[in-house]
Amino acid sequence: MANPGHNLPFETLDYMKKTIAIDMDGVIADIEAQVLAWYERDYGIKYTRDYLAGRPSDDLFPEKGLVGNYVRTAGFFRTLPVMEGAVEAVKTLMEDFEVYIVSAAMEFPLSLNEKLEWLGEHFPFITWHNIIFCGDKSIINTDYMIDDHIKNLDHFKGKTYMFHAYHNTLVTHHTRINNWPQVVELLKAEL
Amino acid sequence: MANPGHNLPFETLDYMKKTIAIDMDGVIADIEAQVLAWYERDYGIKYTRDYLAGRPSDDLFPEKGLVGNYVRTAGFFRTLPVMEGAVEAVKTLMEDFEVYIVSAAMEFPLSLNEKLEWLGEHFPFITWHNIIFCGDKSIINTDYMIDDHIKNLDHFKGKTYMFHAYHNTLVTHHTRINNWPQVVELLKAEL
Repeated sequence: MANPGHNLPFETLDYMKKTIAIDMDGVIADIEAQVLAWYERDYGIKYTRDYLAGRPSDDLFPEKGLVGNYVRTAGFFRTLPVMEGAVEAVKTLMEDFEVYIVSAAMEFPLSLNEKLEWLGEHFPFITWHNIIFCGDKSIINTDYMIDDHIKNLDHFKGKTYMFHAYHNTLVTHHTRINNWPQVVELLKAEL
Repeated sequence: MANPGHNLPFETLDYMKKTIAIDMDGVIADIEAQVLAWYERDYGIKYTRDYLAGRPSDDLFPEKGLVGNYVRTAGFFRTLPVMEGAVEAVKTLMEDFEVYIVSAAMEFPLSLNEKLEWLGEHFPFITWHNIIFCGDKSIINTDYMIDDHIKNLDHFKGKTYMFHAYHNTLVTHHTRINNWPQVVELLKAEL
């Protein structure tokens, strides 16, 4: 049950590491790729990421509310593609930072187990100690937050990095990051 | 999906409320009652809360590891009795505080949905915005924490209240609370 090394001295060093809260959807899990693929499957039309840019989540496609239906469909979160470069980058960051996966999963109760299974498959090196599923993220306290949603970043007390996503293309008040190698570069510079 | 009143001015007042993180197991959910009842069901012996006092969780009964098996049994968390007075007390606290339910549920993946359903049944007035399931609680940042486990309370930066439980009877470095009316009394005095 408990980590047997939890009270050993070397853990003290871990405790001193700076902490990062990393979001799932749109950050380590590629929501855009999934939505585009499901739309093509259902309507035979292949939209691109450029088409999505700047659109609000509830108005991505001509079919109003479609994305809302998708995210409430069993299997949606379990089968999300991993964001390019995320696995390697998170592994690298864990060498120098205490990394927490923080997902606003409570809105979609079906997603809880799917997200946990997904993490177990793609990020097995992240233990249950460092996984957080929440409603809003206002009581999350880490040194850094990597997220695509300004509703999470705006009230955060630490340093923010906004992962590029279709819905934040016009936002300029957070440090934009475009890909995972860039996250590693920026955070390594903080050491 | 989103709370339609989320950006209205009166929400600003809510935002200024002091925040409380309230644990589930042993605080609003009566683990001791369930464990004693299941033991009596399985072994025909009726132990009391006094018998449990001071014992470690993994050595509560002569049958080593029994509690570990119980908490991994489907239905255990879903059928926990509500701690006496918890519903009324949490409702009262919500008048003056922003209340978050923070449960270290990640260790037991089966418990995620059970805990969410349990909250929906017994605390339907707490919305998904204010529910957090985590591994450890070290990045939880609220003004107050009510918990029975010192592993959660010891590293917490805010004010701590230790809910009385069999495993903390010898602990003296947190404010002990014995029942829910006492929680309300102490926190009302903080206003």
